[in-house]
Amino acid sequence: MLPKKYLAWGQSKSEIRELAAYGAARKAQIGADNVFDFSIGNPSVPAPACVNEAIAELLKGDSVQLHSYTPAAGLMSFRKAIADDLNTRYQAGVSADFIYVTCGAAAGLAICMHGLVNPGEKVIAFAPFFPEYRIFAEAAGGELVTVPPTETLQPDLDALAQCLDGETAAVIVNTPNNPSGVILSAESLTRLGDILRAAEEKYGRTIYLVSDEPYRELVYDGTAVPCPLHFYDDTILCYSFSKSLSLPGERVGYLAVGSAMADKDDVFAALSGAGRGCGFVNAPSMIQMAVQSCLGQTSDLSIYKANRDLLYNGLVELGFQCAYPDGAFYLFVKTPEPDARAFCERAKKYELLLVPSNDFGMGGYVRLAYCVSSDMIRRSLPAFAALAKEYGL
Amino acid sequence: MLPKKYLAWGQSKSEIRELAAYGAARKAQIGADNVFDFSIGNPSVPAPACVNEAIAELLKGDSVQLHSYTPAAGLMSFRKAIADDLNTRYQAGVSADFIYVTCGAAAGLAICMHGLVNPGEKVIAFAPFFPEYRIFAEAAGGELVTVPPTETLQPDLDALAQCLDGETAAVIVNTPNNPSGVILSAESLTRLGDILRAAEEKYGRTIYLVSDEPYRELVYDGTAVPCPLHFYDDTILCYSFSKSLSLPGERVGYLAVGSAMADKDDVFAALSGAGRGCGFVNAPSMIQMAVQSCLGQTSDLSIYKANRDLLYNGLVELGFQCAYPDGAFYLFVKTPEPDARAFCERAKKYELLLVPSNDFGMGGYVRLAYCVSSDMIRRSLPAFAALAKEYGL
Repeated sequence: MLPKKYLAWGQSKSEIRELAAYGAARKAQIGADNVFDFSIGNPSVPAPACVNEAIAELLKGDSVQLHSYTPAAGLMSFRKAIADDLNTRYQAGVSADFIYVTCGAAAGLAICMHGLVNPGEKVIAFAPFFPEYRIFAEAAGGELVTVPPTETLQPDLDALAQCLDGETAAVIVNTPNNPSGVILSAESLTRLGDILRAAEEKYGRTIYLVSDEPYRELVYDGTAVPCPLHFYDDTILCYSFSKSLSLPGERVGYLAVGSAMADKDDVFAALSGAGRGCGFVNAPSMIQMAVQSCLGQTSDLSIYKANRDLLYNGLVELGFQCAYPDGAFYLFVKTPEPDARAFCERAKKYELLLVPSNDFGMGGYVRLAYCVSSDMIRRSLPAFAALAKEYGL
Repeated sequence: MLPKKYLAWGQSKSEIRELAAYGAARKAQIGADNVFDFSIGNPSVPAPACVNEAIAELLKGDSVQLHSYTPAAGLMSFRKAIADDLNTRYQAGVSADFIYVTCGAAAGLAICMHGLVNPGEKVIAFAPFFPEYRIFAEAAGGELVTVPPTETLQPDLDALAQCLDGETAAVIVNTPNNPSGVILSAESLTRLGDILRAAEEKYGRTIYLVSDEPYRELVYDGTAVPCPLHFYDDTILCYSFSKSLSLPGERVGYLAVGSAMADKDDVFAALSGAGRGCGFVNAPSMIQMAVQSCLGQTSDLSIYKANRDLLYNGLVELGFQCAYPDGAFYLFVKTPEPDARAFCERAKKYELLLVPSNDFGMGGYVRLAYCVSSDMIRRSLPAFAALAKEYGL
């Protein structure tokens, strides 16, 4: 008699976690250096020194205040600093009053789904997408509808236009994208804005754009990540400091509701209410204060660029086909056989741990997380070469 | 078109937060020392030294590991330490495999409601109760049914027996109780267990007992808090370190599913699934590690006992009627007029900030949080005397 939905989600095995467990066992068997584990998107570079320095400094202060409840939406000083940072770096024009500090991007996305989507309504995501989008949409009683990508792994906006209807409450974009590393271009965002505005007009309802962007600072070659707020008024930014500050375990991020949104007061209230309903009280207090003093800084991300170049060039040279990733720390590689899971099983023979694309909403690809040591990448290339040979590449 | 439930929760004013805002404004006007603010249950004593010492030590270690994702259910070393602590102190007989580390008790309760309650099912709570119980039950699509207390503010178990039916998924108890400070006795728990077992038999379904016990260590005069797991197999403990370690802002607690529960595997899975659906990834990593090394310790709670004695004796001497609180840091005082809100308005004339009992599911009482300075309590007594005089006490 337990709720079927939650029971199923608790019982379902995550392909990534299963693979991680397999990897741990295999490392114990044959030595960690002999397993090439590309399965997990856990930042491999430490947080910038300012984070731990800020915590050490905070520990010298008033302990009661440090560990105290903060307002549900976060410390006002932190919200102001976030708004200033967004306005300085992206001319986002957001106000601290519409920043809601969350326990990471997962919390932010879950809160958006509960606060914006009525039971039975649709949420649209573009494949490939982060698998938990489905969980968050369905937890709110919504239905996740997915749009397959174009050949170049860009969102298929023509297909989106066909999908929108009077029951569509929200569209999620993820830029730079996990798992493909692709950045949503200004051109795509312009068209996306036009399509969504036309649909709002046609169906007489608001369609919210939720922009999930925890990888915003992980971009290479000077590529810019355009801010969706400039292209569409009904946008909510969803951010996490997990990747840019290498703090995934500490759970801190935020939602930013655009200033030009007509019903922004109601939206902020609904998000606040959803936060209550999901059981959030506040994001951890000490980390809010520590991150506040590190805004605008990042971990040393240069290693990710070096890793991207090393792995991308190595694989392309071996004959693999791969979307060129401008950001994030993933390669999304086309599998030389259509069944991604079969390819991953074969890769295991060479101690290569890769994630099949199926959970990301499409077949035929694998995700490689290159937030690993450059040394491991270098040592893995002969294994990839053997795998390529097996497929006659 | 925003979901009405969440919009309403985001727009509704919390009586306690409104009062806190009024208090802040009043303190600015007439000086903080002249306002007697009993409104907020924020621990007033610092965390024990071990917490900040542990954090300082952790900062010296591997930063990547420190701030890394932990498993969704928490670090296994922490879960084992929690199980050991519960088994040593309460002979709880729990296993680390059935401990789920949460972002505090609010997260734990929200997860229990989503994971255990199907839409349309009933959750029973005993007045007076923590107001967010209603939010969590209704967020899950359930209905909160409340049972008024006996004269001595104990749960009315006869009334409970009348309420239970085939649609009842869970019963929540809170011991020691916020706002009354009353502890659920072994005698009450024995009867509660008998009643729930009989109802399970009669209706052919499981009825889960959720025991919300963040104040478990805040007890005085050597009073024991009996562990509900000894009285009823289908019990889930919900705990937070917010009060015992004075860490409310850091969001760390746990759920413990009883070992004797027949469907404990499914229940643990459903709770895990509910955690995913609500947007939790893990409780903050650094705090999990820090608290692990402080298990069994508490803040210096002696000040709360001194405050209780001072305030309880002072008020009773003035003629107020009050349940004798064995635990927590609240007094629940009968108002000399039936309308608790009117009484609180009158108390404001004497700069006394008290919370009316209405939000706790019953009228005719006020809650006084005595996690404040003893000095403030001493200085407030003349104000209470003037208030008592106004009512002819």
